Amino acid sequence: MEFSSKLLEKAVYEMSQLPGIGKRTALRLVLHLLRQPKTQTEHLVMALGTLRNEIKFCQNCHSISDVNICDICSNPNRVRDMICIVEDIRDVMAIESTGQYRGLYHVLGGKISPMDGIGPQNLNISSLIEKVKSGEVKELIFALSATMEGDTTNFYIYKQLEGVEIKTSTIARGIGVNDELEYADEITLGRSIVNRIPFENALKNS
Amino acid sequence: MEFSSKLLEKAVYEMSQLPGIGKRTALRLVLHLLRQPKTQTEHLVMALGTLRNEIKFCQNCHSISDVNICDICSNPNRVRDMICIVEDIRDVMAIESTGQYRGLYHVLGGKISPMDGIGPQNLNISSLIEKVKSGEVKELIFALSATMEGDTTNFYIYKQLEGVEIKTSTIARGIGVNDELEYADEITLGRSIVNRIPFENALKNS
Repeated sequence: MEFSSKLLEKAVYEMSQLPGIGKRTALRLVLHLLRQPKTQTEHLVMALGTLRNEIKFCQNCHSISDVNICDICSNPNRVRDMICIVEDIRDVMAIESTGQYRGLYHVLGGKISPMDGIGPQNLNISSLIEKVKSGEVKELIFALSATMEGDTTNFYIYKQLEGVEIKTSTIARGIGVNDELEYADEITLGRSIVNRIPFENALKNS
Repeated sequence: MEFSSKLLEKAVYEMSQLPGIGKRTALRLVLHLLRQPKTQTEHLVMALGTLRNEIKFCQNCHSISDVNICDICSNPNRVRDMICIVEDIRDVMAIESTGQYRGLYHVLGGKISPMDGIGPQNLNISSLIEKVKSGEVKELIFALSATMEGDTTNFYIYKQLEGVEIKTSTIARGIGVNDELEYADEITLGRSIVNRIPFENALKNS
């Protein structure tokens, strides 16, 4: 792609560094900004710049927060001895939107992935282990995605906690509510049969 | 979507104002920036800000340019009495990349679209008419997309030039080189039969 303007070329290049944004999409986005009032670009630039400079991570759960201890961790109504381990803040937001969880979170910031050069030392794992070993946690819920990396990370944490007396669980995998059986993949369907639950329990939850 | 951080919420909101970027994608992009070194965000913010503040449009063809007259318009080797009418700079880049056109361009900045509130007065049409009426142009090539809006815009310009002696043409529509006939849509295939060209001409061009 040849550009008649170095300014345009630079903006498109930087935009195309974002994941899933190719050169053509980047050009489309940048040209859109040029067609809009100047204020739109100023607001975008300001919001991104401020976020990157002033962002804080909760000192307790490592989730993104504007203050040192996030709203969830500082909420006295949350169950403090139950911790749900998630990958990033999107998972926190997803679980919070269900309204079904009243415990705290621990955000790892990723999953162990040797292929991408991400080891346990790059994640917020040691602080989790410390927290658990200090005895303030009764139940750990593993809520990482059920991929190779997620399972590896779960297992690594599980091994680190050998000898510690704590209840551990993992979120249920199965056929989505309202999903048709015929469209489910075999592994999910298989797991949902192996991990079937008593009918009375299902009645209670519905 | 509920955010634990106002800074994050603001950044996601501004990002989701870009076309084709929903809230979820915006969150993914912003979280990506947070995981990357600070310099990446700084470069992006700087490039967009500088572009929006310092961008110029060529005074002759209205294409994006870093100087008052763009490289194409100021190139003495270009054919100066042939003008290709295009919608935006992406079309200029596409035609330039073919290496088949040696004339100048005129960038309209859009197409007439009453549905979007875009009339002739919002586009660079009057300067084109003036240019043509001044007698410095021998051939006009219409290269807008073959949509309702493109055709409307073409026709509007064409009517404005009634009585002016000038050669006008439109880029050829037909089956793409290397495309299979069976996959072509009927309208394109129909046009390519109606507008068939002498075999000898096709031989010369290939």
